[in-house]
Amino acid sequence: MNIFAEEKKYKTLKNDLILRAAKGEQVERTPVWLMRQAGRILPEYRAVRAKLSGFKELVETPELAGEVTLQPVDILGVDAAIIFSDILVIPEAMGLPYEMIKGKGPWFENRIRSEADFKKVHKADVGSDLKYVTDAISLTKKELNGRVPLIGFAGAPWTIFAYMIEGSGSKTFSEARKMLYTNPKLSHQLLQLITDSTIEYLKAQIVAGADMIQLFDSWAGILPSNQYKEFSLNYINQICDAINEVPKTVFAKGAWFALQDMVDLNCNTIGLDWNMSPEKGRELFGDKKTLQGNLDPCLLYADEETIVTETKNMLNRFGSQRHIANLGHGVYPDTDPEKVKVFIKTVKEHQY
Amino acid sequence: MNIFAEEKKYKTLKNDLILRAAKGEQVERTPVWLMRQAGRILPEYRAVRAKLSGFKELVETPELAGEVTLQPVDILGVDAAIIFSDILVIPEAMGLPYEMIKGKGPWFENRIRSEADFKKVHKADVGSDLKYVTDAISLTKKELNGRVPLIGFAGAPWTIFAYMIEGSGSKTFSEARKMLYTNPKLSHQLLQLITDSTIEYLKAQIVAGADMIQLFDSWAGILPSNQYKEFSLNYINQICDAINEVPKTVFAKGAWFALQDMVDLNCNTIGLDWNMSPEKGRELFGDKKTLQGNLDPCLLYADEETIVTETKNMLNRFGSQRHIANLGHGVYPDTDPEKVKVFIKTVKEHQY
Repeated sequence: MNIFAEEKKYKTLKNDLILRAAKGEQVERTPVWLMRQAGRILPEYRAVRAKLSGFKELVETPELAGEVTLQPVDILGVDAAIIFSDILVIPEAMGLPYEMIKGKGPWFENRIRSEADFKKVHKADVGSDLKYVTDAISLTKKELNGRVPLIGFAGAPWTIFAYMIEGSGSKTFSEARKMLYTNPKLSHQLLQLITDSTIEYLKAQIVAGADMIQLFDSWAGILPSNQYKEFSLNYINQICDAINEVPKTVFAKGAWFALQDMVDLNCNTIGLDWNMSPEKGRELFGDKKTLQGNLDPCLLYADEETIVTETKNMLNRFGSQRHIANLGHGVYPDTDPEKVKVFIKTVKEHQY
Repeated sequence: MNIFAEEKKYKTLKNDLILRAAKGEQVERTPVWLMRQAGRILPEYRAVRAKLSGFKELVETPELAGEVTLQPVDILGVDAAIIFSDILVIPEAMGLPYEMIKGKGPWFENRIRSEADFKKVHKADVGSDLKYVTDAISLTKKELNGRVPLIGFAGAPWTIFAYMIEGSGSKTFSEARKMLYTNPKLSHQLLQLITDSTIEYLKAQIVAGADMIQLFDSWAGILPSNQYKEFSLNYINQICDAINEVPKTVFAKGAWFALQDMVDLNCNTIGLDWNMSPEKGRELFGDKKTLQGNLDPCLLYADEETIVTETKNMLNRFGSQRHIANLGHGVYPDTDPEKVKVFIKTVKEHQY
């Protein structure tokens, strides 16, 4: 997309705060959204979900995915929508279908533990196998009608790799981590295949209408720092270099030890989790990056007064520019939407 | 215990390397042991375990707990034994019995979610309800016959609290963390009760023969730093101040953000996990603490040559004094004992 087309596209947005903040442009107030805002907390979401066979039906039905994507914009008043989907659509499109088991999380019947297993997966055919996501984005984009930007996303290659090897969630992901030590060559081959699939997938999301994208490295925090560089940051780097159409956010949860290495990533925004310090983030990233985060999601269990005080405290620590207000992790499922509204209202009305 | 008695006790040990390293005294080589070495990896352990109804029978039968405690000393040649037990014996002794469910981990039928629930628990009666642990320690101590020191342990109060509220393992421990925000007063009351029970428990372990003790704060890493100080370090501090008979180790997994606050803890040794840097540890703790750790447990899945190289690398990074070699987490259950032997041999033979 050329600069003129990009400019035109931005001009059609009635609220482009988050895009300007990401690009380091001046904003009149701090933009705010929540990770996992689409899905999980709203009764309106649960009403849609209750009519369906399961989580995947919702992910795979563009009209419904679009509907729940819009709910937080209408109901909570966030400054961005994020497409309702799951990072595990990529392994599925590569040949490893998953199930979402209630109370247990993701489950893969097949997993990759050998070169023979690796031969059974392939680069995702985004145009056919992930059309339900790009369709959901197109529909949502139309429905949004420029009210706020739409965020597309994908898992970072290491996190996707971890699920493809492990085959489920895990406290230690020791099978995935074992592969890095026992077969680094195969590990790199699989990571490259995930990366190639992800680049194509994100580009398709942008063509369909995503105004910015975020990479989620949910299991960043379990790698030693040298392995994190080799098996995760290298691939995040490739993705960031390949995507230049829209602003990019990298959120590597728990990777406090890798922040220094992320200073020169070709992305606009770095997500901080609730353990990381806004001041240290500023010190490290200076003017090079916008920071996103990082209120403790459990703070939304507190009373209103505490939420207001702590939100204002966080805002002051980040300062009025180059900050996108968010939690330091996805909003937890049992959070009261009224408390979320208090958080959002506090951000919107805050005077620095 | 007065200094003379302490000296005498040490003199009966044929190998007191770990105690001297903990106290900052000169050692001729770096001592080595593994967290979770008793239980988990040895076929000899599995043979004992296979004859029993379950994990708890092993924990609660002093002769058998003693037997598996000694196995790694005999088979692996570690420089310390650690009593085979579980941190969850404390909540059980306080009135919340647990089960260990295969493939799932710990499970509590009752949990603490209200002041009414809190009224149902009580300070542990260590002399009666935890006699099986102190009996196991006495038996093991006799059987060890001074070959190596015996380590006693307990969970740090925050980690025990997390299980008592949550009632099981959890990825987020959001119920436990919710309690900190919604009822800080009740949280402090419960943490104090756990602390009082733990102090009495550790003192009984020392009387029974434990030569040093370790506090495991397994869920340290999920708290924001201000809450970690208030709800965890405060209580660890109380325990450290109350125990002066033997050297003390504090291992707060994932609490990289709290290391600075741990410099003045009244303990001898700080455990580092595999994400933490030996150099930064030295810089922070200087001469004030011995450091323990911190090889990535997954490194033991690699080939021998890699294990040797990386172990030597770690040893050189820590240096020859004030270091207790260990993994950065408990050894994983599917680790090959032969690989563990390579790690131990490398430490024992290393020339700095």
